Amino acid sequence: MRDQEALMETAHAMADAARAAILPHFRRGGLGTTSKETSHYDPVTVADRASEAAMRAILAERRPDDAILGEEEGIKEGTSGLTWVIDPIDGTRGFVSGAPTWGVLIALCDADGPIYGIIDQPYIGERFEGGFGHARMEGPLGPMDLGVQPAGSLAEATLFTTFPEVGSDIERRAFEAVRDRAQLVRYGCDCYAYALLAAGQIDLVIEAGLQSYDIAAPVAVIQAAGGMITDWEGRPVHAGGRALAAASPALHAEALALLQEIAHG
Amino acid sequence: MRDQEALMETAHAMADAARAAILPHFRRGGLGTTSKETSHYDPVTVADRASEAAMRAILAERRPDDAILGEEEGIKEGTSGLTWVIDPIDGTRGFVSGAPTWGVLIALCDADGPIYGIIDQPYIGERFEGGFGHARMEGPLGPMDLGVQPAGSLAEATLFTTFPEVGSDIERRAFEAVRDRAQLVRYGCDCYAYALLAAGQIDLVIEAGLQSYDIAAPVAVIQAAGGMITDWEGRPVHAGGRALAAASPALHAEALALLQEIAHG
Repeated sequence: MRDQEALMETAHAMADAARAAILPHFRRGGLGTTSKETSHYDPVTVADRASEAAMRAILAERRPDDAILGEEEGIKEGTSGLTWVIDPIDGTRGFVSGAPTWGVLIALCDADGPIYGIIDQPYIGERFEGGFGHARMEGPLGPMDLGVQPAGSLAEATLFTTFPEVGSDIERRAFEAVRDRAQLVRYGCDCYAYALLAAGQIDLVIEAGLQSYDIAAPVAVIQAAGGMITDWEGRPVHAGGRALAAASPALHAEALALLQEIAHG
Repeated sequence: MRDQEALMETAHAMADAARAAILPHFRRGGLGTTSKETSHYDPVTVADRASEAAMRAILAERRPDDAILGEEEGIKEGTSGLTWVIDPIDGTRGFVSGAPTWGVLIALCDADGPIYGIIDQPYIGERFEGGFGHARMEGPLGPMDLGVQPAGSLAEATLFTTFPEVGSDIERRAFEAVRDRAQLVRYGCDCYAYALLAAGQIDLVIEAGLQSYDIAAPVAVIQAAGGMITDWEGRPVHAGGRALAAASPALHAEALALLQEIAHG
């Protein structure tokens, strides 16, 4: 138990450090560039690297035996059996647009997958966390418990994804099969959509083309909040790929059947 | 000049009152309903009405001779020649999804159109205002000046709209003609997209099917920040319809030509 407290404290320290590293670069520059090749000041690249470096520095000090998998610097091997899977800025296209829906993702995984995760939105000052018996958030309105609040059926459900294209042609068509039966569909939220599901605000998130660092933290937060999240075959998704997150098993089953109908031809 | 100060003070008092009226209902209920017909607690309807009532109460006290046009309660005639055009919650579908991209819109108009406007995001605590010689915002990072920062051409531009469908079939196709030439396209921000344009973060916003209360405040803020905003014929858009907002005259002209090519068959 004391180890769990220490691990959560480390994760919060990482999220705090990422905030401090990123915010000086948010909404700076205004050139809208997403290129990593340019030589001039590129706020999102600078912020991305500074965020990951800041989080790795904390792990080097507090958890030197844990492994790390990060978007920017890749894999650092460990010996503890625990791996920190981190995305220093998830939603870089939202970031360069100035939208407040990107986030810092921090997951702690054992051999079976995520056991604890944080989705942090530095600009709003919101932090969603799940695992070790907790499912909670802090934000502008104070601390609150997380918990799914599922619609009764897909026809009453709110569905989020980041881009209408979703992924490949078949992935887009599979998404559209679900979209056409949902009550409300919204776009553009990146990792923030998973936080909204955990907070009981929406019912479904469908995405494709994910890396482990995009989805490991959402998996932990959504499961802690009582939601269900798998790939489009109903298997664990924390290693990446295509994600289906749902506020209830019934919604998950309804969406999964539609996805599979298309994805399996 | 003293009258301008008083008018701005009134607008800020209205935005403060709207925040206080709305926030107790944001992310409450979690039922995702947008229906105005249901008899149970419907957070967005309650918040919408409370927000407009709170703003009208301030005008009744401070500006009894001004006209009011509000989404919920319609028109109140006036004798001063000034009209307050207000949308108590713009982006109700974002609101019911818990997303932080809805806003309160307050515009002050004379016979020629908007002369001052506020776009307020209560949850984040952000307020964008433009007019009477000011273009500025307040938010989590403190006060900042607004000002467009245009990309050099459409091929380098970031474009926002709320829904991929945009509007009618021809409106969707006209939007897609611009979308296909932009560098980056994002969805789902409602009025917040206009604020991002005024803040120098994005280059273009295209929408259709707007009412005057959806667009009058964005017109004031964008014009004060140095941007250009018209309908798809290049005419004033503050009365509603189809909007094209751009960070520069060159971007506006490039997008307008593409929209007209489709819209005029």
